[in-house]
Amino acid sequence: MSSNITRFGILGSGKIATDFCTALSYLAGDVKAVAVAARALDSAKDFASKFDIPRAYGSYEELTKDPEVDVIYISVLHPWHYNTALMCLQNGKGILCEKPLTMNAKQLEHLISVARERKLFFMEAMWTRYFPYSMRLRELIKEGIIGDVKLFQVNFCLPPIDDATHRVNDPKLGGGALLDIGIYTIAFSQMVFEGRVPVKTNVQSQMNSLGADVFDHIVLEYDQGEKSIHTLSMVSPSENHAIISGTRGYIKVDAPFNCSTGFTAHVITEDGTNTTQRYDYPLPPVIPGTSFYFPNGVGMVHEARYVHKLIQSGKIESDQETLEESLDIMKILDELRRQMGLVYEADSQPLLH
Amino acid sequence: MSSNITRFGILGSGKIATDFCTALSYLAGDVKAVAVAARALDSAKDFASKFDIPRAYGSYEELTKDPEVDVIYISVLHPWHYNTALMCLQNGKGILCEKPLTMNAKQLEHLISVARERKLFFMEAMWTRYFPYSMRLRELIKEGIIGDVKLFQVNFCLPPIDDATHRVNDPKLGGGALLDIGIYTIAFSQMVFEGRVPVKTNVQSQMNSLGADVFDHIVLEYDQGEKSIHTLSMVSPSENHAIISGTRGYIKVDAPFNCSTGFTAHVITEDGTNTTQRYDYPLPPVIPGTSFYFPNGVGMVHEARYVHKLIQSGKIESDQETLEESLDIMKILDELRRQMGLVYEADSQPLLH
Repeated sequence: MSSNITRFGILGSGKIATDFCTALSYLAGDVKAVAVAARALDSAKDFASKFDIPRAYGSYEELTKDPEVDVIYISVLHPWHYNTALMCLQNGKGILCEKPLTMNAKQLEHLISVARERKLFFMEAMWTRYFPYSMRLRELIKEGIIGDVKLFQVNFCLPPIDDATHRVNDPKLGGGALLDIGIYTIAFSQMVFEGRVPVKTNVQSQMNSLGADVFDHIVLEYDQGEKSIHTLSMVSPSENHAIISGTRGYIKVDAPFNCSTGFTAHVITEDGTNTTQRYDYPLPPVIPGTSFYFPNGVGMVHEARYVHKLIQSGKIESDQETLEESLDIMKILDELRRQMGLVYEADSQPLLH
Repeated sequence: MSSNITRFGILGSGKIATDFCTALSYLAGDVKAVAVAARALDSAKDFASKFDIPRAYGSYEELTKDPEVDVIYISVLHPWHYNTALMCLQNGKGILCEKPLTMNAKQLEHLISVARERKLFFMEAMWTRYFPYSMRLRELIKEGIIGDVKLFQVNFCLPPIDDATHRVNDPKLGGGALLDIGIYTIAFSQMVFEGRVPVKTNVQSQMNSLGADVFDHIVLEYDQGEKSIHTLSMVSPSENHAIISGTRGYIKVDAPFNCSTGFTAHVITEDGTNTTQRYDYPLPPVIPGTSFYFPNGVGMVHEARYVHKLIQSGKIESDQETLEESLDIMKILDELRRQMGLVYEADSQPLLH
């Protein structure tokens, strides 16, 4: 690794990769994208030109063999995470991979074992964990500001996309609420309950004509009876807040909960009065001439900076979302899918070698 | 009935009766409390003196036989609604009865049949329905402002009351979340879905040591797949909002949803942009020297005024929540209790004659 600089290869050239490279451009040379690969060379070249990336490849394999790349950011659709991630690791590259890391726990266990065996960087791009509001939220919960947490409620509800062939409606392209947006709510719940594994899971779903889950209502239960309630919808929008409710008050995280800029704590004090405390964490200012596709996309800067810090300190895993926790989350998704009867092609495919 | 004046008998002399009589005092003589009864004559006398009520009785029966009373407001704990209500009706008195009207549908069917047979006024004191915000909300939903309603979400979550013998924790005194606070969320759901009866019900509960349900999570499903999601808690507080989510936007009713002062409609317009429209309905101003025990209690004025209007126009039932709807709501509560295994003494007691 070249000293002090983290050199990224970008695998995939879509909107999320665009936002990620824009975020990298905010880090003033500490982190650089040095190569990009897309399925079509022209797309890779266009992308490279937009971000002054020196090398563009028309195949993912070429990128994984580029000797100047330290770590590869995987941003293709999630059905292709496993095979591209494995290729990266097998070619000695660390990976920051978009969520969900894989289609099922079996695939993820394999990737984790390969990454650890080869001592390569491996981290889920769960950007939520690296926002300042999210760091502070974890501290306050741990300090018991709202007493014992009893209930977590979260919404991720979007307006319908009427085009039946759109990616989000097609399970073959990773469409469906659970893996597309549920990954955020489940990961948030695991954060609130400090990584404890739920003892009960329950889900009620509704499928579209292609077999994608367009509505899921999930109840997880933790070992002290704490409930975690998730409403995921691709048929009607709602307020996408998160509320953590405890014996002595509650915290409401402003929508969008997964890339928020603040929260309000409503605390019942010893003498029974109610107090309200506001916590604000504005987004980094958007640099003129830059823009982001995704709401609050500039918040990706926090994640990119964290990856840089980890890599520069020689760490190969995140301490904010461990790989064990990523795996626990994937196992919860597997169990929910089992209850829903939702099977992906990946479930019947053998692991790669 | 004396012309133009509605003469109330007050059955019970607790906090809710106090708020109701305070509300009556706002109606400048159109509606009068002319008698009050409590189990202890002294309580009735104290109450009568506070509100200048001419007659006080130490038994409910005396009140029901007072010839100057047109309609009786029943405010005792709900386990005693059925027998007191029946006594009123059998003595020829109309009733406005606090919610839930009875402990089960069997009792309510009996009361409805007696009231109709004797052509007596009978109405559930579901004050929510008579607030201006609630009237306007119904209109907007009907007009399709948010497209087709797909999802309703509502919270009624309160801090724990640690005294294990407190009424709210004791099922013998009507304690427990479903009948105490769930009645509000179910009645609101029925309002949002225009009285249609759910085709599926599902509940997950948690009981305290006395057998009262201190946490209920309810999912109702309507015939077009619409979901109605209720979180009731007596172990941790939360934001007690209601959100109605449709294909073209959502409406968020400010907490407390059941006696609110407004809501915000988030609407996706034809060209895909998002608009926000605020609807405010401030509470009637509190008259100096008066006060209310319950949050937004002054809103009881709307209900009292509506009752007066109905009675003066010769109506014996509300057109904003029909008795059929009250009965449907009670049947939903019965079914939820069946699933929870929650049985009240009233369930095994025979109907009275």
